[in-house]
Amino acid sequence: MNPYTIFAEIVAGRAPASTVYEDQDVLAFMDIRPMTPGHLLVVPKVAARDLSELDPEVGGKLFKVGQLLAAALRDSEVGCDGVNFFLADGVLAGQEIFHVHLHVIPRTAGDGFGLRGRPTSPHRVALDYLAGSIRGALERRG
Amino acid sequence: MNPYTIFAEIVAGRAPASTVYEDQDVLAFMDIRPMTPGHLLVVPKVAARDLSELDPEVGGKLFKVGQLLAAALRDSEVGCDGVNFFLADGVLAGQEIFHVHLHVIPRTAGDGFGLRGRPTSPHRVALDYLAGSIRGALERRG
Repeated sequence: MNPYTIFAEIVAGRAPASTVYEDQDVLAFMDIRPMTPGHLLVVPKVAARDLSELDPEVGGKLFKVGQLLAAALRDSEVGCDGVNFFLADGVLAGQEIFHVHLHVIPRTAGDGFGLRGRPTSPHRVALDYLAGSIRGALERRG
Repeated sequence: MNPYTIFAEIVAGRAPASTVYEDQDVLAFMDIRPMTPGHLLVVPKVAARDLSELDPEVGGKLFKVGQLLAAALRDSEVGCDGVNFFLADGVLAGQEIFHVHLHVIPRTAGDGFGLRGRPTSPHRVALDYLAGSIRGALERRG
């Protein structure tokens, strides 16, 4: 089996998974390399390598299912007090499996998970300049 | 202005923001404390403190707008090669502003951003046990 598309094998029932949720468009199961106990992945059933290939309606469903799972995790024996969503789109963003997946990561005090990096404080003029460039890119997409 | 609900002030036009996208339900603007240049926030117009208060239809729209912005960022002068989505739900997850917001973070080589923490490799029986508990919590929610 191709490790880069293993989620397609799970969706097809050809690879094992500890499933927590399934509907017509979406499957959710335990990450086998959890950052914290109860770490879940929510994936589209129709393969999409990245966000640009993903039907936005199905993208919206990934988030909705994530909301449902965030509530269920708190009610379950995972017993978390917070939840992070994380998604990596592209190799440079840390994507390793080329089938879109939303991470739903339960959080408890002192679990050691978090973000790496330092925020900066740019001037408003710099923010406005980039905002204008992004608005232009959106307009060109129509 | 209350820093914990500043996004409601931005939605109402009472606080400044470098806006990139707006529709009936959703607003997106530059994060004033960017982890990388071009870091955006996507927020619901109707205030929701956390995921449990957020209308799932609007939650789905946050993701869809995130997909659109991920494409526009690549086409803009931000010039990124990847994108991360991140969301913090609850103080223990790092939430600091109590108005739901999806981070859309452009990535370039060597930008220093990433995740902190170490994945583990639990046995399948442990994954199945937690999966069963989460499915139980979902069923109790109905």
